[in-house]
Amino acid sequence: MKSETTIRVRYAETDQMGVAHHSAYVAWLELARVDWLSAAGLDYAAIEESGIFFPVVELGLQYKRPARFNDEVRVTCWLAELASRKFVMRYSLHIGEKEIATAFTTHVPQDGEGKARRLPAELMRRLERAR
Amino acid sequence: MKSETTIRVRYAETDQMGVAHHSAYVAWLELARVDWLSAAGLDYAAIEESGIFFPVVELGLQYKRPARFNDEVRVTCWLAELASRKFVMRYSLHIGEKEIATAFTTHVPQDGEGKARRLPAELMRRLERAR
Amino acid sequence: MKSETTIRVRYAETDQMGVAHHSAYVAWLELARVDWLSAAGLDYAAIEESGIFFPVVELGLQYKRPARFNDEVRVTCWLAELASRKFVMRYSLHIGEKEIATAFTTHVPQDGEGKARRLPAELMRRLERAR
Amino acid sequence: MKSETTIRVRYAETDQMGVAHHSAYVAWLELARVDWLSAAGLDYAAIEESGIFFPVVELGLQYKRPARFNDEVRVTCWLAELASRKFVMRYSLHIGEKEIATAFTTHVPQDGEGKARRLPAELMRRLERAR
Repeated sequence: MKSETTIRVRYAETDQMGVAHHSAYVAWLELARVDWLSAAGLDYAAIEESGIFFPVVELGLQYKRPARFNDEVRVTCWLAELASRKFVMRYSLHIGEKEIATAFTTHVPQDGEGKARRLPAELMRRLERAR
Repeated sequence: MKSETTIRVRYAETDQMGVAHHSAYVAWLELARVDWLSAAGLDYAAIEESGIFFPVVELGLQYKRPARFNDEVRVTCWLAELASRKFVMRYSLHIGEKEIATAFTTHVPQDGEGKARRLPAELMRRLERAR
Repeated sequence: MKSETTIRVRYAETDQMGVAHHSAYVAWLELARVDWLSAAGLDYAAIEESGIFFPVVELGLQYKRPARFNDEVRVTCWLAELASRKFVMRYSLHIGEKEIATAFTTHVPQDGEGKARRLPAELMRRLERAR
Repeated sequence: MKSETTIRVRYAETDQMGVAHHSAYVAWLELARVDWLSAAGLDYAAIEESGIFFPVVELGLQYKRPARFNDEVRVTCWLAELASRKFVMRYSLHIGEKEIATAFTTHVPQDGEGKARRLPAELMRRLERAR
């Protein structure tokens, strides 16, 4: 399953080069990830309340074309790899027909104290089904 | 007592107008406030750990001149008003000799559940002394 | 005329108090302002390309209740004061039926070099009509 | 040559997990990069004024341990690869003795219109010398 999230580039996200600053994309990926989880029937806020967190342990971003103020950026997101102790989300960002960036984030499930833990079986099943 | 905090404008803080975006200043004020507390012998991280929080309930900012990438901004900060249920911090921002902005933030002490509470006597005393 | 903009609180906008950081609101106001201009038939990107900028010279924000991760915040925006050299936008932020914040921003039209200038007559007319 | 930049984690950079949000690191790398260039005798603001820009075309970040509010993060930065049309900066982030993250950014020199161009000979020489 792929989810699609549309972001409008904020003025605050531009820099003096006149384009969206490369750090802004990281928050966009996060929005897309939350939407993907939601489309998979998972509410990230509720997951955290249950004591499980999905911190980012690795991030990769390739920038191909700039995004500008007020551009509509479409972020496609999917689950690329899944194991009980680690999963990888991938992202493709488009403006119109043009791909402007690709990205991945790797996540390690943790408890509230920051200790790595296995994905609970029910969560794992849902992620597997939505993959 | 007045504290002084020096900030270097980050590239990420600029916008396509070629100056520091007006939202960036809000984080600068916060840095200055933490430094003021520290100069007053108070560690904000420790205050939070003790279960007291100083959320901002009001914010005012006047922008007089722009700040640019890599500019060194000096934020002077002081406690302007103090009561057991509310206090006001004031700020003056300079680049070189020129004042570029003034600001204030109003804070209401709260507990971890977001309920307003009086400043503990010891905290109140220290703030009063540093005023 | 009042415009309405809906923002979903980003995880990146939360802080360790567990609520949206007070600086995040400033970007939300900007999104609402751009939407108001758009509803008034004005494209802010095009206005800037024509060499006119609306920098914020004053900002006021009152925070009444916190916003949390994934909350849907509705920002109502309107033009409160209009003169050829200065205008004021006002904002009311709601989550559901509850008002969580109010704000204003004051703007002084400038050219690309940062010199104050009068609003061009056509722009003035459109703002007046949309008021 | 390696440069060292010290950053204090801003409250605004924390998220509801109680740690610095992973997007904050991207701005820290940028600060470190600007400092490295400065240590190499190069002023990035002046480089941009001369019409050359170093946009990030690729970004990689590995997060090993969290950073918390007010932590002092030391970012070591160096030039890892250099060619006339592309260069790679590497970063190692420490709190105390512990490495908390590693990163790289790849840059492609561009002109003001976003066209890739060779590094001017003088710039290339200075980067080579500082490597």
